[in-house]
Amino acid sequence: MPSLLRVGLAGLGTVGASVLNRIRLQQAALEETTHRRIVVTGVSARSKAKAASLDLGEATWFDDPIELARSGDIDLFVELMGGSGDPALTAVRHALSSGKAVVTANKALLAAHGMELATLAEERRVPLGFEASVAGGIPVVKTLREGLAGNVIDRVYGILNGTCNYILSRMELEGLGFEQCLAEAQRLGYAEADPTFDIDGFDTAHKLAILSTLAFGTAIAADAIHVEGIRTISLADIRAADELGFRIKLLGVAQRVAGGIESRVHPTMVPKSSAIAQVMGVTNAVTVDADAVRELTLIGPGAGGEATASAVVADIADIARGVRSAPFGRPVAALVPTAPVPLQRHEGGYYIRLNVEDRPGAVAAIAARMAERGISFESIVQRQPFGKAADITPVRAVPVVLITYATTEEVIRQAIEAIMQDGWVTGRPQSIRIERE
Amino acid sequence: MPSLLRVGLAGLGTVGASVLNRIRLQQAALEETTHRRIVVTGVSARSKAKAASLDLGEATWFDDPIELARSGDIDLFVELMGGSGDPALTAVRHALSSGKAVVTANKALLAAHGMELATLAEERRVPLGFEASVAGGIPVVKTLREGLAGNVIDRVYGILNGTCNYILSRMELEGLGFEQCLAEAQRLGYAEADPTFDIDGFDTAHKLAILSTLAFGTAIAADAIHVEGIRTISLADIRAADELGFRIKLLGVAQRVAGGIESRVHPTMVPKSSAIAQVMGVTNAVTVDADAVRELTLIGPGAGGEATASAVVADIADIARGVRSAPFGRPVAALVPTAPVPLQRHEGGYYIRLNVEDRPGAVAAIAARMAERGISFESIVQRQPFGKAADITPVRAVPVVLITYATTEEVIRQAIEAIMQDGWVTGRPQSIRIERE
Repeated sequence: MPSLLRVGLAGLGTVGASVLNRIRLQQAALEETTHRRIVVTGVSARSKAKAASLDLGEATWFDDPIELARSGDIDLFVELMGGSGDPALTAVRHALSSGKAVVTANKALLAAHGMELATLAEERRVPLGFEASVAGGIPVVKTLREGLAGNVIDRVYGILNGTCNYILSRMELEGLGFEQCLAEAQRLGYAEADPTFDIDGFDTAHKLAILSTLAFGTAIAADAIHVEGIRTISLADIRAADELGFRIKLLGVAQRVAGGIESRVHPTMVPKSSAIAQVMGVTNAVTVDADAVRELTLIGPGAGGEATASAVVADIADIARGVRSAPFGRPVAALVPTAPVPLQRHEGGYYIRLNVEDRPGAVAAIAARMAERGISFESIVQRQPFGKAADITPVRAVPVVLITYATTEEVIRQAIEAIMQDGWVTGRPQSIRIERE
Repeated sequence: MPSLLRVGLAGLGTVGASVLNRIRLQQAALEETTHRRIVVTGVSARSKAKAASLDLGEATWFDDPIELARSGDIDLFVELMGGSGDPALTAVRHALSSGKAVVTANKALLAAHGMELATLAEERRVPLGFEASVAGGIPVVKTLREGLAGNVIDRVYGILNGTCNYILSRMELEGLGFEQCLAEAQRLGYAEADPTFDIDGFDTAHKLAILSTLAFGTAIAADAIHVEGIRTISLADIRAADELGFRIKLLGVAQRVAGGIESRVHPTMVPKSSAIAQVMGVTNAVTVDADAVRELTLIGPGAGGEATASAVVADIADIARGVRSAPFGRPVAALVPTAPVPLQRHEGGYYIRLNVEDRPGAVAAIAARMAERGISFESIVQRQPFGKAADITPVRAVPVVLITYATTEEVIRQAIEAIMQDGWVTGRPQSIRIERE
């Protein structure tokens, strides 16, 4: 008779309901692979009325998730309430302190308190699993922590937010503007009523902070990440990218550079031929560059109840099997704090779109400002604006699009500043970093 | 002071040399993550002279790999000799029997003797790792065994042989014939002097047998796999595929169907928009369809010393950490033998290319033979043959390409047989199965 693993489940939304169902559905298979009988013995959720529609089996109801976390009747606490504060934080603290294993899908909690919670888990010698917190059903935490154990990792980057990728995909495929696609995403439930967290890149940053810690053994430092969202991306950028052989994705990128780890979230031009460029809609993808495997890409569902439940159940199964890894691979004491590398030092190519007054000498002047700073171009395209060629305004603005070879952020910013001071440019220049495989 | 994990390494070719080097390079990092000091204490290889060029450190040389496997001075035996027979088989048997953990990259050995070796490992309660045996540096064994523990898997398929994918990619990208690309692959070291094992699909079948066992919990049955290689693929097929929105890949596919598991290796038409279609050159890719994650794709290096060493070291690290999974996830007793599902029952779409005599009524007759059997078309294309339109032979043959909607293998074979008996067709008809996401 296999020993019981008693699970307490806090949070019964889409993910919680799927976890509950999946543990039951896979009970026999999980018993075969883990030699434990996994049973949900306690549950808690905000609304008892809503939970009434679920088959809770023999699970005891707890009004207070913290009581559930402290309960002596569970061995493992699953936290699916979300949010970086309470009750999630206090509940997880209590569960770990009382010697229980914890599995959470909560990236905000880990980004804010991951070091403290990992320390607590280490002290109490209990596992803390969070596969579900990054890229939903993609086993990227396991891959970084275990699968690439023999590698030195140079870069990890990916599409970590399905909402943004959905919006950018729709803009490209249907030629719609940002606002319209956002509204559509909200209607379909892919975006929240307040979309800031997704659209402005913070969700991606939380996930990147976790990946970066796993990849580089650095202390979690979500605040050190440079974050830009996708609000400024226009259809003109998406069309220009397409013509130049690129696609625009919101990427989280963490890479080893001289002086530390550069971590950034921003809209990015990726070559259309890259694996990551093929990833459309709400799907997520993560690419790891490492010394032995060179390049490994994982593509799969980044959200959704069932996909996230898949990751939660995999963590539960590992714990049931007795797997004991440090939460972030290394002991907390070995996680090195890193000073953030300022983005000014970022090296790479840039896409720049300027609205330039259609007067003789404009492009020449712009090119000169770039040349002064040693910036050279892969391509430069000046186009007639969309719409009628015959224009009655005396001085028209035409879009000029530049793709530069590798340079630095600092130099690009200076060049754009100088160009603007020359007075040839109207409106805000757009610049988008290019990321190559 | 962490305890030692003493590794015996048999086989010092490209992979063996990389493993040796990587264990040394990553020793401190591995000690941090596993709390064990991993040291290669014994080595064996066919040629002592060749091994002399490597820095073997303090490792003791063994002339006989079987002696190394039995040695009391190692805790873990790494088998990188290859081949389904001796000395690999006897060495691994001895290592397991004497209570040592084993890590192997040997798919041929596992395809032939995996059940016996897993049983032995289980009896002696020692781990048997083989991440490196399938898809090189891609952690697909770990993903199936652990990462997708909460899923019921419906299908696993992939590009598992870099040689074939290199040849098909070159044929497409450079418009070269099969023989020329094979010769090129041989020159570059991507294909063996005797390429049968790769080109005719057997290598893919061995890997598929392992994936299928992990995915479905069935006993290993490499002999039950239907195997076709890529020798029959012509440039005409590759061009026709391209025009119709497909790309041709040699896939290994194992899927749950009524009555069991259908396992097959054959050239396959995949939609150009699919993630797997983007995988070019020697790169490998595996896609898993499962009930919770829906679709998960892993793309990475399928071969090469460093990439394969990455997988070997990951297995060693898991063993060092004390991870104890059954080799195939489930206990051997729970691995169900499955009767092979005959390919005649395979359901799917087909690409068919026929050389048809250019006489009135030919296409109509072919279409009628198809219609009689309820086969309907997604498209039918008749083209002038490549070359000059003016042809002096009285009856020319023109290629006709059909894409069918889903039907069965049996029905397609009957239809082709009937069409051939009608006498409209010259030469051997080509048929290629279509695999959709």
